[in-house]
Amino acid sequence: MAAPLRIALAGLGTVGGGVIRLIETNAALITRRAGRPIEIVAVSARDRSKDRGVDLSHYAWEDDMTAMAARDDVDAVVELVGGADGPALTLARNAIQHGKSLVTANKAMIAHHGLELAELTEKAKVALKFEAAVAGGVPVIKGLREGAAANNIDRLYGILNGTCNFILSSMEDTGRDFADVLSEAQAKGYAEADPSFDVEGTDAAHKLAILSAIAFGTRIDFASVDTQGITRIQAADIAQADALGYVIRLIGVAEVDEEGGQRRLFQRVHPHLVPFDHPLAHVDGATNAVVAEGNFAGRLLFQGAGAGDGPTASAVVADLIDIARGDLGGEAGAPFSIQVAEMETMAPAPSGHRLGRAYIRFMVADRPGVLAEITAAMRDAGVSIESLIQKGRHEEGGNVMVAMVTHEGPEARVSEALRLLEGSPALAEPPLVMQLLGD
Amino acid sequence: MAAPLRIALAGLGTVGGGVIRLIETNAALITRRAGRPIEIVAVSARDRSKDRGVDLSHYAWEDDMTAMAARDDVDAVVELVGGADGPALTLARNAIQHGKSLVTANKAMIAHHGLELAELTEKAKVALKFEAAVAGGVPVIKGLREGAAANNIDRLYGILNGTCNFILSSMEDTGRDFADVLSEAQAKGYAEADPSFDVEGTDAAHKLAILSAIAFGTRIDFASVDTQGITRIQAADIAQADALGYVIRLIGVAEVDEEGGQRRLFQRVHPHLVPFDHPLAHVDGATNAVVAEGNFAGRLLFQGAGAGDGPTASAVVADLIDIARGDLGGEAGAPFSIQVAEMETMAPAPSGHRLGRAYIRFMVADRPGVLAEITAAMRDAGVSIESLIQKGRHEEGGNVMVAMVTHEGPEARVSEALRLLEGSPALAEPPLVMQLLGD
Repeated sequence: MAAPLRIALAGLGTVGGGVIRLIETNAALITRRAGRPIEIVAVSARDRSKDRGVDLSHYAWEDDMTAMAARDDVDAVVELVGGADGPALTLARNAIQHGKSLVTANKAMIAHHGLELAELTEKAKVALKFEAAVAGGVPVIKGLREGAAANNIDRLYGILNGTCNFILSSMEDTGRDFADVLSEAQAKGYAEADPSFDVEGTDAAHKLAILSAIAFGTRIDFASVDTQGITRIQAADIAQADALGYVIRLIGVAEVDEEGGQRRLFQRVHPHLVPFDHPLAHVDGATNAVVAEGNFAGRLLFQGAGAGDGPTASAVVADLIDIARGDLGGEAGAPFSIQVAEMETMAPAPSGHRLGRAYIRFMVADRPGVLAEITAAMRDAGVSIESLIQKGRHEEGGNVMVAMVTHEGPEARVSEALRLLEGSPALAEPPLVMQLLGD
Repeated sequence: MAAPLRIALAGLGTVGGGVIRLIETNAALITRRAGRPIEIVAVSARDRSKDRGVDLSHYAWEDDMTAMAARDDVDAVVELVGGADGPALTLARNAIQHGKSLVTANKAMIAHHGLELAELTEKAKVALKFEAAVAGGVPVIKGLREGAAANNIDRLYGILNGTCNFILSSMEDTGRDFADVLSEAQAKGYAEADPSFDVEGTDAAHKLAILSAIAFGTRIDFASVDTQGITRIQAADIAQADALGYVIRLIGVAEVDEEGGQRRLFQRVHPHLVPFDHPLAHVDGATNAVVAEGNFAGRLLFQGAGAGDGPTASAVVADLIDIARGDLGGEAGAPFSIQVAEMETMAPAPSGHRLGRAYIRFMVADRPGVLAEITAAMRDAGVSIESLIQKGRHEEGGNVMVAMVTHEGPEARVSEALRLLEGSPALAEPPLVMQLLGD
């Protein structure tokens, strides 16, 4: 039996507890598969006295995470502290600089500082692994970085936030409105007390930015992800989408735009209408699913639980097993599949020339002439309307909903039509635009 | 730039041509990701003169595959010859014994001789990789062996044969019968001239046996896979399943049966009724999909094109990139996740005590009393019928179809009921039984 892989664990929240439980529960199995035991040596968290439901007495306690990262009896550090900067980042840098491999579930830190950390690991010849940062227990980082490695990825898209997907599919099942379902999700622990990180799309954007870097070999560019959340979606939108043959899902999409001979990176996290016959239309509850379209493999789908202590711990320990096996992600390092120095810097791609179909929903005053005004703006901007429905009065205020789906055309035309309507007294609120997910 | 990974390629059929095209088309990308080029040094096939649509003039031609496997200028051998034994197996043994890593798409060879080859590679400290042997371009071997490595797998199941899935989903879409759709599949190249390997379930059984070994750490036991193909399924069965809320799919299922304190291996490839709301119910065409249920990760789904030159080549080259990166699957070898010496030998699990619901279809003479005879047999065997339908005369012969779905109960009771009916002159042909896929 080879010597154990000795780990230190920082952060003992839900996921940290899950990692300890997993390593204890599946110890024999892990040893057989890794070829040696994975042994927790030291742990660290903010509050030593808190009851976490796991017995920590076998492990050395370190108040100082930085000191823990430097311990001679530690081979790899697991960072589950969270936060893009602060103690998590300090710990990550320290661990790598002390020659420890680093495993993290921290999508914010990787989205913001992943390349810096990757460069440090390339120098230190240790591993940086973050399978748990995207899609919980679903091995999609590995699937893209290794499983699909032979392919030029044409497009990457998916459902990257379990909270949003739980809310949208519950709205669909129950006909209830966003706020109502959000409260339920909070009560069930599927949504945080402050849900904005999830429902505004930021969490999905972090994950998309990480996946883009691996799929396309571009430097991570989280700041340029065009992000729109799900807070404005109403039960009526979901009913209308259903009548048209679609469900609504928060979808992250990324691709390389080669328009005009220049390679630019398109990244968008928006709610989309997904046709019933698309695999992503059947992804319900707190599930994540990622599709990668390769030039040889075709369309690959990875799906599973996107969050929770068990699935996230599964991904963390899978990374540790890789490290224990000696599979550090290539002798050359390269946590993002290629060396940081070789990654392309791509400008963000504009979206105006993109061809697509859109769902546009207006809340308008219930008086004659409004529909004529809207359709005139569409005509003037060159938007061709495929179907349009005006719903009867559905709220006290006397506003009615007008929902339309456009024929395929450049996105700029829809923007132009909405610009023409800006400031119109007929509109009770800004229109809501959602793209239809194309094949 | 590190030295290239030099490969020899045996077998230049559809997949071999695909591998050459992929390595040529995506050469720059592969070099960046692998950290070094992957270079084809030598090729071999039965017939040198055949036009394969790829230019072979850059590569050394070897008439003798065994000699090719021994070349000093080759680091890894790709076996795409096919066949469980014969030249493929000889080549595989020779390559490994000469210290070359082996990559193969050959599911029959791995299902029959995978453990022997794995033991050879453990000694030779080279890699044995066969991602392309299961589910085409879908990285499910990697997903199970590495991505889900931290989990005790509770159950594994999926759609493992693209030909059968194409036929069944086409029957569903068109209402046509098996033979008719099979001819179309053959014309389109989705089915072989001799389709029995696919439609009798053998191909799916090979894949299931390989996945079982990785998921459960058991020695491969292809011979014990309880296999039943799709040839007896009629358009009327599909219509009946649809009316009940199901589609019919050929599903391979494997799990460890711990009944009675002994660990036994249950492996079955049968057509199943899959409820509309199950992810596998939406897997259409020549697609494969594998579900693994882990004790921490929950339900993981891997889906994509199950065959074809592009997807299969994608998997072969992904394996080569792993090897080029130095990720040989663990310092300890272990192509099946754990060392061969540590794999369990499990007896096949009996199915009689398994609880499940079944669809049973009878073709019976259209005369009074037949239904009473069938239902009496069910009653005597203790089978509880949930729903039953008798379809009007649908063919010249004057037989009618009786289809029923049972309540949950032990499978042995259904077998007993059918035994009671054996030899009854009322039955025009043996009944067809299909299990309902449970949650």
